Amino acid sequence: MMRPTMKCVTRILAMLLVLIGVSALTACNAAQTNSPEPAHPNLTVTQGDIDVISSQIKQVPRAQRALEQLIAKVEADMAQQMDVPIPKDAGGGYTHEQHKRNYQSLYDSALLFQITKKPAYAEFARTMLLKYAELYPTLSIHPKPKEQTPGKLFWQSLNEAVWLVHTIQAYDMMLAFLNQQDQKTIENQLLRPVANYLSEGQPATFNKIHNHGTWAAAAVGMTGYVLRDETLVKKALYGLDMSGKAGFLKQIEHLFSPDGYYAEGPYYQRYALMPFVLFAKAIHVNEPERKIFEFQDQALLKAIRTSVQLSYNKLFFGINDAIKDKGIDTIELVHGIAIAYEISQDPGLLGVAEQQNHTLLTGYGFGVAKAIEDGLAKPFEFKSMQLRDGKDGDQGALAIFRSGIEEGHQALVMKNTSQGLGHGHFDKLHWLYFDNGHEIVRDYGAARFLNIEAKYGGHYLPENNAWAKQTVAHNTVVVDEQSHFNGDWRLSQKSAPSVRFFEATDDVKITAAAIADAYEGVVLNRTMAMIKHDRLEYPLIVDVFKLSSEDVHQYDLPLHYQGQIISHNLNVNAKTRALYPLGKENGYEYLWDRARGEFTSPMAQVTWLNADRFYTYSTVGGEKEELIFAELGANDPNFNLTKESALIHRVEAATNHTFVSVLEQHGEYNGRAEYTVNAKSKVVALKHHYVDDINIVGVQLEAGDFITLVFTERGDEASKHKVEHDGRTVEWVGHYTLIND
Amino acid sequence: MMRPTMKCVTRILAMLLVLIGVSALTACNAAQTNSPEPAHPNLTVTQGDIDVISSQIKQVPRAQRALEQLIAKVEADMAQQMDVPIPKDAGGGYTHEQHKRNYQSLYDSALLFQITKKPAYAEFARTMLLKYAELYPTLSIHPKPKEQTPGKLFWQSLNEAVWLVHTIQAYDMMLAFLNQQDQKTIENQLLRPVANYLSEGQPATFNKIHNHGTWAAAAVGMTGYVLRDETLVKKALYGLDMSGKAGFLKQIEHLFSPDGYYAEGPYYQRYALMPFVLFAKAIHVNEPERKIFEFQDQALLKAIRTSVQLSYNKLFFGINDAIKDKGIDTIELVHGIAIAYEISQDPGLLGVAEQQNHTLLTGYGFGVAKAIEDGLAKPFEFKSMQLRDGKDGDQGALAIFRSGIEEGHQALVMKNTSQGLGHGHFDKLHWLYFDNGHEIVRDYGAARFLNIEAKYGGHYLPENNAWAKQTVAHNTVVVDEQSHFNGDWRLSQKSAPSVRFFEATDDVKITAAAIADAYEGVVLNRTMAMIKHDRLEYPLIVDVFKLSSEDVHQYDLPLHYQGQIISHNLNVNAKTRALYPLGKENGYEYLWDRARGEFTSPMAQVTWLNADRFYTYSTVGGEKEELIFAELGANDPNFNLTKESALIHRVEAATNHTFVSVLEQHGEYNGRAEYTVNAKSKVVALKHHYVDDINIVGVQLEAGDFITLVFTERGDEASKHKVEHDGRTVEWVGHYTLIND
Repeated sequence: MMRPTMKCVTRILAMLLVLIGVSALTACNAAQTNSPEPAHPNLTVTQGDIDVISSQIKQVPRAQRALEQLIAKVEADMAQQMDVPIPKDAGGGYTHEQHKRNYQSLYDSALLFQITKKPAYAEFARTMLLKYAELYPTLSIHPKPKEQTPGKLFWQSLNEAVWLVHTIQAYDMMLAFLNQQDQKTIENQLLRPVANYLSEGQPATFNKIHNHGTWAAAAVGMTGYVLRDETLVKKALYGLDMSGKAGFLKQIEHLFSPDGYYAEGPYYQRYALMPFVLFAKAIHVNEPERKIFEFQDQALLKAIRTSVQLSYNKLFFGINDAIKDKGIDTIELVHGIAIAYEISQDPGLLGVAEQQNHTLLTGYGFGVAKAIEDGLAKPFEFKSMQLRDGKDGDQGALAIFRSGIEEGHQALVMKNTSQGLGHGHFDKLHWLYFDNGHEIVRDYGAARFLNIEAKYGGHYLPENNAWAKQTVAHNTVVVDEQSHFNGDWRLSQKSAPSVRFFEATDDVKITAAAIADAYEGVVLNRTMAMIKHDRLEYPLIVDVFKLSSEDVHQYDLPLHYQGQIISHNLNVNAKTRALYPLGKENGYEYLWDRARGEFTSPMAQVTWLNADRFYTYSTVGGEKEELIFAELGANDPNFNLTKESALIHRVEAATNHTFVSVLEQHGEYNGRAEYTVNAKSKVVALKHHYVDDINIVGVQLEAGDFITLVFTERGDEASKHKVEHDGRTVEWVGHYTLIND
Repeated sequence: MMRPTMKCVTRILAMLLVLIGVSALTACNAAQTNSPEPAHPNLTVTQGDIDVISSQIKQVPRAQRALEQLIAKVEADMAQQMDVPIPKDAGGGYTHEQHKRNYQSLYDSALLFQITKKPAYAEFARTMLLKYAELYPTLSIHPKPKEQTPGKLFWQSLNEAVWLVHTIQAYDMMLAFLNQQDQKTIENQLLRPVANYLSEGQPATFNKIHNHGTWAAAAVGMTGYVLRDETLVKKALYGLDMSGKAGFLKQIEHLFSPDGYYAEGPYYQRYALMPFVLFAKAIHVNEPERKIFEFQDQALLKAIRTSVQLSYNKLFFGINDAIKDKGIDTIELVHGIAIAYEISQDPGLLGVAEQQNHTLLTGYGFGVAKAIEDGLAKPFEFKSMQLRDGKDGDQGALAIFRSGIEEGHQALVMKNTSQGLGHGHFDKLHWLYFDNGHEIVRDYGAARFLNIEAKYGGHYLPENNAWAKQTVAHNTVVVDEQSHFNGDWRLSQKSAPSVRFFEATDDVKITAAAIADAYEGVVLNRTMAMIKHDRLEYPLIVDVFKLSSEDVHQYDLPLHYQGQIISHNLNVNAKTRALYPLGKENGYEYLWDRARGEFTSPMAQVTWLNADRFYTYSTVGGEKEELIFAELGANDPNFNLTKESALIHRVEAATNHTFVSVLEQHGEYNGRAEYTVNAKSKVVALKHHYVDDINIVGVQLEAGDFITLVFTERGDEASKHKVEHDGRTVEWVGHYTLIND
C-alpha cells in the first residue's frame, strides 16, 4: 500500500470523490492542506539522500566535480533562450532534440535546486513546466507520427514516456517551490494528461509486454506516486484493468530470463533496464514492503549484472538490431549499476562504475562515488557462462566463453537464443569473437544511423531488413541462399535452438546446440570450443558445424572477419577487372564477389591482420568447395552500408556435411617499433571424423604437437564413453575429452 | 681533436705504426697500458651520468619503474637460450629479427650492468659478443641480399650499421669488465671488421648524403671513439677520404633545410634523426670543442623540434613513403627529445617526453625523467608555420596551419615541397587534413606491410609505385590521368613548387604555391586557407586550385576522405550491379568506379561522418563536370591495398579551370547518448571570380552571413590593393583580406 493514503483519514470521502472523477489522492491532499505533507522529493531521490549529499559532498571529490559540472551545465542551459517548440520534426530533427534537451534540463535544474537550494534553478524549471503546461493541451497527434504508436510532443509515444519519466522526477524535486496554483496548472494541464495519454490513451502499448510498455508503466506509475494517485500506480503495476495480467510486475516476470537475459539482446536490454530500475527504485522508496528488488528471484539485479556480462571492452555484444556504439557507460547502466550497488553493496559493481566514470548526484549515485573514493571497488567478475533465454529459460541460450577478465582477453559468444521478436536477426547458432580489445569475427548489428535525419530519417534503414537481419550477414550456415525461417520472424519466434551441452573449465570451454526448424529438412548442429594449449600464445577456437539432410543443398558458411588479408594457401581467382554481386536476394545482393579460392590442400588457411595481431582461420575442405572473398557494398546507391569483408566457405552440393574450422590468433605486428613476430599460424593440419555420434577433431601444430578434441552429445556430464582412435582406446566421462600428444 | 690522443705522448711512434697498419690509437693505448685509461663508458652514456643515476634514481619514480622494467626485460632475455644464428632470412624473418633482438639485449644488459654493477649482466653481454666475434669472420654477403647494399649479418648494410650503433654503445658500457684477450678478440674479429665493412667495404653508401650514409657514419665514428681510432672518427666526420666532401658534417649541412625539414618527409626524418642525435651526443662527449649541437645554426636541435611539428595526435604526417603507425613515441624521437632537452633545457620538449611515456636510463633520459617529476614540463608549442625545403630553403615548403594546440585541434598540411628523392610521391600541391584526433583528408602513405614476410617479404609492395606514389592517390590535380612529372622522380627532383605567399594570423591562415613543370604546358597554382568565423563551430578550409593551359585537358581533383557518406546533393548514378576500374594506368586501375554524380546546382555538397563529427565538402561545378565516387581495391588480387574511398571532381575538357571548394566540419553524432546535432552544413552557397589576378571567394552561410576572401599573389605583405566588388571598393594591404558581412 502507498504510504500517503495510509495517513489519510478521510478515505471514505475520497472514495466518493473518485466516483465523481477526482483522484483519491488529490482529494486526500486537498482535504488536508493544513496537515503535514509527506516530504518531497520522494521518488528516485529522497530528502534523506539530499541531506547526505549536502553534508558529505565536500569529502567526495568526484561528486564535488560532478556538482561543478552540473552547475556549469545548468547555468549554460539557463543562459540560453528557453525554447519549448511546437512539435514538428521526426527523431533527430530540431524539435525532437529540443524536447529531449528540455527534459534533461528540467531534471538537472531540479536536482541542482535540491542540492544547492538556490531558487533560481527551481524558477527555471517552473518556467519551463508552465510553458509545457500551456503547450500540451493545444496538441493533437504529432505531425510526423511514427508507425502505430505516435506521441504528441514526439513522433512516438515511447519518447513521450521517456520525457515523463524525467519530468516527473524533476517535478518531484522542485514542487515544494511552487505555489498551489502552479502545482495545479502543471499537474492538471500537463503531468496527468500525459500520464493519461500514455495509459488510457494507448492501451495496446501500455499493456504490451515489451520495453515500450515498461517505459509507459514507469512514467505513469512514477507520476502516480508524486501525484498521490493510487490508481495510476496500480495501472502501472498491474495493467490498465489492474488485473495483474499486464503491467510492470508482469513485465519483470516475462521480459527477463531466469539468468537475467532479455530476449531482444543486450542493446535493448540496456534500454529496457532504465525504466525498470528507475521505477523499481521509486517503488522501493514509496512501498518498501513490496521488496521489488527481491521480486522474482532478484530478477532486476540479475538483469543489471547480466547486461555487464554481455559486454566486451565496455561495448555490448552487437547482436540483433544493435547500435554498436553502446556500452556499459550508457546512462541507463550508470543508473542501473548505482541502484544495484545501493541494494546489493556488491564491490564488483563499483569496478563497472569506475569504468563508467560518470557520477550521478542522486542518493545512489553519491553512494557509489563515496564507495569508490573509499577504495571499495573490485574488478567486475566476468565469467564464462551460458545465459538461458526465455521467461522459463527454455528458449535456447547465449553462451559466453572468456579466457580471463583482463583487458584484451578473448571472448567468444555463441548465439543459440530465440529470435528476439521484431528486432531479432536470422542467425541461429551464430558466433562472434573478440580479442585484443577488438571485435574480430563480427556482427553487423543494425543498419541504422541513429538520429541522423539524412539517413532515412534516423530510422532503421531498408538495408536493416534486407541485409543486416539476413542470415548471410552472420557467421552461421545459409542453406540454398535462403535465410533461416525464410526471414519470417514470427515463424522463427516459435522455435529456439536446443542446447545440447555446455561445460567450462579453465582449459576447455565447449557448448553445442542444434535447431531443426530453421530450414525444412535440414538439421543445423554446431559445437564450438575454446581450448588452451601450452604451445599456443592464445586459446584456440574450434568450430564443428554439422548439416544433416536427405536432400542435396548448397551450404554457405560465412565468416565476417575484421582486418587486412595477409596470406592464404588457396588458389585464388580474383575478380580484378569487374565485380558483380554474389547473389540476387536474402542479403547476397549486397555482397560483391571479390575472389574465389579453390582448396589446394585438405586444409585452407587465411591469415589476416587486425590492429597488431594476426588471425588465422583454418578450415577443412576439398573438391566442389571454395572460399569466396566477399565485400559489402553492392546495390547500395545511397552509401548506407559500411565497408565489411567476409569469407564464405561454400559447399556446392551435399546432403550431409560438416564444416570443421579453427581460429588461431598469434604474433604481433609493431609498425612503431618495427618488428613482427609469429606472423605464421602454428596449425599445420586439421582433421575431423565421426565414430558413430562421437566427433574426433585433430589439430596438428608446427612443433609436432597434436591436440585431439573428442566430444559427443550423448549422455550427460557423468556419462562414461569409450572410442577407438589412432590405435588406442580413449575413455572419458562427460561430453568431451581433450588429448594433448 | 680527440681527447685520448691529446693525452698520448707517443704520438710519433703511433703515426709510424699507422704506416704498418696498426691504428694510431690502439698503438697509443698499447704503448701506455700501465698509464690510466680514459674512463669508460664515454660515448652516449658517461661515468658521470651513471654516478648521477645511481645516486638519485630512488627519488625519481618513473626512472625507478624503468629500471624495474629493464631488469625484468634483461632477466627474461638471459633466461632464454642465447641464439646468434647464421644469417639466413630477409627482413621480418627469424634470423633478421633475432639479430635485432640481440643488439637490443646487448645494449640493455650493458646499460643495466653500468647501473647495477652486477657482473651477471656484463657476463651475458660478453658471451654474446664473443659468439658474434666467432661468427662474423665466417660470413660473406647475406644469402638474401637487398638490392645494391647487402650486409653480412643482415640482408642490408643499413641494418648492420644500426646493429653496430647499438653494439658499440653496449661494448663501451661493459668493456671494463673484459680482460685484454676478450677485448682484443671482440675488437679485432667483430667491431673493427664491421666498421671497416660499413666504411671501406661500401664506399658508395658510406659517402652518400642520405640516411643510410648517416647510419654508417654514426656506427663507424662511434666505434672510432670507443676503439680510440681517430681515423675511423675522421672518416665518419669527413667521408672516406677525410676531405670533408662527404661524412657526417656534410650530411648535417645537406640533409636538413634551414627550418629543420628533411626532404624525404617526417617518416624518414624520424629514422634519419637517430644516428644524427646519437653520434652528435657521442661527439659532444668526446669532442665538446666541436660544439656539434651549435653546428649549422643548431641544425640538429631544429630538426628534432621540427619532427614534432610534423605530427598530429602523436603520429607523423603520412606523406611520401610513410608507415603510418609511426609517431613521436618512436624510439628515435625518445632519444632525440631527451638529448635535445639535455642541450636546450626547453620545457616544451618535456611535454613531448611526457606523451612519449618512455624513460631511458641514459644520462639524458634520466635528466628528462627527473625534470618531469619536478613538474617542469610545458605543452609543446605547436605552431602554424611553413617549413622551407632544401638545403638552402629554396625547394618549396611544407605549410602547416593549426587552429590551436589542444587535443583534437584542426591541422591542415599543404605539401609544396620538393620530390624527396626515391621515397617521394608525385603529389605537388597536395594537402592533408586532421581534425578531432583523426586524419580526415588522407594520404595513403606507403603501400607496405613492414617486416611481414608474407607481404612481398616486408618490402615496399609493387602497389607502392603503382598506386601509392601516383598523383591520383593524393589530393591534388591529375591532368589527363597522368601523374606529375610522368612519375619520374629524377625529373621531379629538378623542380620544386614556388611558394607565392604564406601568412598566418589567428583568424586567417593562408598560403599559395605554384608549379609549372609537373605537366608540360599546364601551370598548377593552389591557394589554401583556414578561416575562423563566429558562426562556424570550427575553422573553414578554403581551396582555390587554378589550372592554366593553352590546350584542352581533362582535370581530376581527388579528395581522399575518411568516413561514411551521409548525404549529398548530386544526381548520382551508382553502379549497383557491376563495378569496373576507373582507368588503366597511373593508379587509376586500382580504383573501382563506384558512382558518378552530376551537379544539380552550381555547388555540389557531400557530407560524411567520421567518428562523431560531420564533414561537408562543397565545391563549385556545372555541366561537363562530375564527382566520381571511387573505391580502392580493383586489380588487387593479393589483397595488398587497404579499403579507401575518394571523391574525384572531374572536369572533362578545359584549357583554364579553377576548382573552388570549402571543407566544413560540424556537429556531433553521439550513438552512445543518442543525439545528433548540426548534421547539416551551414554553407549554402559558394562562388568565385577573378578581377584580373585578384581572387574573390564568396561563402554564404545559412544564417545569411557572407564570408568573402579576397587574395592575390601580387606584391608582398606591405603592398596596397584595391578592387571593386559587389558595388563597393575593397582596399587592403598584403596578400589577402577577409570581409565578414
